[in-house]
Amino acid sequence: MSLLVVGSVAFDSVETPTQTRENVLGGSAVFFSYAASYFCGVRLVGVVGDDWPREHTALLARQGIDTSGLHVVPGAKTFRWRGKYKPNMNDRETLEVHLNVFETFDPVIPPEHRACKYVFLANGSPITQMKVLDQMPQAELRVADTMDLWINLQNDELREMLKRIDGLVLNDAEARLLTDDENLVRAGHKVREMGPKFVVIKKGEHGAMFFSREETYVMPAYPTPDVIDPTGAGDSFAGGMMGYLAERQDYSPHTLKQALAYGTIVASFNVEDFSLDRMKQIGRAGLEARMAAYRRMLSF
Amino acid sequence: MSLLVVGSVAFDSVETPTQTRENVLGGSAVFFSYAASYFCGVRLVGVVGDDWPREHTALLARQGIDTSGLHVVPGAKTFRWRGKYKPNMNDRETLEVHLNVFETFDPVIPPEHRACKYVFLANGSPITQMKVLDQMPQAELRVADTMDLWINLQNDELREMLKRIDGLVLNDAEARLLTDDENLVRAGHKVREMGPKFVVIKKGEHGAMFFSREETYVMPAYPTPDVIDPTGAGDSFAGGMMGYLAERQDYSPHTLKQALAYGTIVASFNVEDFSLDRMKQIGRAGLEARMAAYRRMLSF
Repeated sequence: MSLLVVGSVAFDSVETPTQTRENVLGGSAVFFSYAASYFCGVRLVGVVGDDWPREHTALLARQGIDTSGLHVVPGAKTFRWRGKYKPNMNDRETLEVHLNVFETFDPVIPPEHRACKYVFLANGSPITQMKVLDQMPQAELRVADTMDLWINLQNDELREMLKRIDGLVLNDAEARLLTDDENLVRAGHKVREMGPKFVVIKKGEHGAMFFSREETYVMPAYPTPDVIDPTGAGDSFAGGMMGYLAERQDYSPHTLKQALAYGTIVASFNVEDFSLDRMKQIGRAGLEARMAAYRRMLSF
Repeated sequence: MSLLVVGSVAFDSVETPTQTRENVLGGSAVFFSYAASYFCGVRLVGVVGDDWPREHTALLARQGIDTSGLHVVPGAKTFRWRGKYKPNMNDRETLEVHLNVFETFDPVIPPEHRACKYVFLANGSPITQMKVLDQMPQAELRVADTMDLWINLQNDELREMLKRIDGLVLNDAEARLLTDDENLVRAGHKVREMGPKFVVIKKGEHGAMFFSREETYVMPAYPTPDVIDPTGAGDSFAGGMMGYLAERQDYSPHTLKQALAYGTIVASFNVEDFSLDRMKQIGRAGLEARMAAYRRMLSF
């Protein structure tokens, strides 16, 4: 049984206080897929232009990611994003966004992917996310991400989408914006009351918070001194989390908590280099070693 | 065996987005003492004016806090602070500071307190902190706090003080300022290399980080939806931590980690009301109940 992800595939240009990279492999569905691929088969649905190099597809395929749902639009260009990180490496400024093919992305889920029970709706408008849900009536666990853009521009559609999913993953600023509550504990539960059975608030270097009707908890980030590029950390977190759930074929509270820990560990590797570069260096054993250290860190 | 704390005793006026309190009991040594008093006897050394009501002293005494070292200066006024919290309840602005008797505070440790093995140097200049150390040659565990003011104005003296203590507790902004490093993992170890055997960086709602030569770890804050007034959270954290160490008469790595968890729990109660109001409502059993929930939260 595999995991479906629908989201952006992009070329990122990233400026940090010490280094810059131009047009490296990025996009929410790419970070998510790679992170999830440590745990299970992943089916990626996205769109690129014909400027997309075959090597990128080959890289994903080698990791067991099914890219048959990656639609290539002839004569068009892939989504491009340019961002610059502040010295604290947590705040960033978007310098350029060229949506290109992503602007009119209207995902069609290949028939052979429609039996996937685990679905992640990465970066995209709630309207697009709902179109995916319409095509996945057999899905058991539907989890989505969102962002400030949709909270501001398509709030009604977002509220409608929230009633149709099982889990929502969003960051702290987005949770505050969506609920108009500065206290994240209250904000998390307010988001949950909008529809999802569980909500995960990502706090970057400060970790993640989980909210369900029965549980409220916080997991700190793994403390790494080597934060090179945080781009994709949230998507890697979600990928590790969903990948582990799909591997286990279970999303009970106990497994969800372990899944959040795996998401935390995968994201901690992702930030240690640009693009997928650090994640490419590690395998499942590397993840498990850091997970063991993380468990020791949290026991007293 | 008891614990000695030297620091400020104050009247606080606190403005939050929803409520205001005038001239309530505060000061670093007061929050610290009350928090530590759940665990062990505490000896408080500080200074007040004759505007200090006896009820405050009686309140501390009932909690087993020895106030014989609280010097009352006739005809003078107690330290007063007024602050205003931003809507996020994490950032605050100091509106007024009247140091009054605290400006010339030159602590004399009563002879009967000089045998204390556990010493906490709360808010004060590094020069004053070193004068206390001079009077405590038998101390086994010397832990200090500091603040931006001293990092900026008495950096040389602070560096000298750091070589004479076992542990330093400071907040994230102070750690970044002191080391000129935005990454808290690196910053924590850089502070440690300035002298203390261990360093604790307090991150407010995001918890605390611990650094020793052998260990680096993070403990999240206990997620409370009821943040009414964060004043004194850092001092309550330090009080819970040092109180537990003094109770156990041990500061091995294992006990230190438990002590950080107790500090976290005590601080989580402190922020749930103004002044000592919430801490006054709970006893050791209340602490232990929340500690059990905290342990469950961190196990997966």
